[in-house]
Amino acid sequence: MRARDLAEPFPAVSLDDQALDAARLLAEHRLPGVLVVDDAGRPRAILPASQLVRLLVPGYIIEDPSLAAVIDEAHADRLCEELVGVSVGECLPRDAPEPAVAAADDTAVEVAALMARTRSPLVAVVERPAARRDGSGGELLGVITASHLLHRLLGNA
Amino acid sequence: MRARDLAEPFPAVSLDDQALDAARLLAEHRLPGVLVVDDAGRPRAILPASQLVRLLVPGYIIEDPSLAAVIDEAHADRLCEELVGVSVGECLPRDAPEPAVAAADDTAVEVAALMARTRSPLVAVVERPAARRDGSGGELLGVITASHLLHRLLGNA
Repeated sequence: MRARDLAEPFPAVSLDDQALDAARLLAEHRLPGVLVVDDAGRPRAILPASQLVRLLVPGYIIEDPSLAAVIDEAHADRLCEELVGVSVGECLPRDAPEPAVAAADDTAVEVAALMARTRSPLVAVVERPAARRDGSGGELLGVITASHLLHRLLGNA
Repeated sequence: MRARDLAEPFPAVSLDDQALDAARLLAEHRLPGVLVVDDAGRPRAILPASQLVRLLVPGYIIEDPSLAAVIDEAHADRLCEELVGVSVGECLPRDAPEPAVAAADDTAVEVAALMARTRSPLVAVVERPAARRDGSGGELLGVITASHLLHRLLGNA
């Protein structure tokens, strides 16, 4: 069982995509996060749904939660307007870690070890052609979530 | 729109449940984590799927990833045996944060602010009867995920 056999399709957005579209993607698929790829299609970051929620909430409310209770429903309905015109790249937290990346030929145990070491709930799987001289990652094949890996490992138990 | 209207059912396990059953629950529902409740049904922690994966991987492999490649398929199939006889309580990381908890009457903006402040992808919603003298939380009504909150907020946009 290799990483390429474990990889599943997963929604990805690019750094230039609109944050509002990323939010719709997360909302529609009920995902905890979306993979962000650069112009070359290489995994760059995970944008968590909680980060997008964070952008909706005015800073003074995060500082003083008691103010949240006094915002009325009409204003709440307009919260998502905060995302209009904002790109995915602008939404990423500065300390957003690079996503964990496995090579297509890695074994299930190598993927599990990578997940364990990085404490990441998601590993991106890339084809890594040996011919690439710059050492950069290759084509994105999909991702392996921790729950999917458990599913496959339990299926063999 | 109040927290009670946003709350959805979510699988929960107790501290005494078997870790293997928690893993099966996560795998079956493809969830990134499961809510852990105490004997009184109060939210105590989130057990992430990545933490269960971490328990499957022998410590010497986490220390030295190159060893992962030499483990054969037959051994990989037995990894999940590591979870046999282990309770959920024993699996929780020592630094597992308490889950973010909202009261049933909190507004959507209060829930968003709580999620933003705690950077939590999941907020547990509890009935919090004022009559409780010990200040402890009440009955668990469900949870609100960041993607579900985005879904509801976008639905009104």
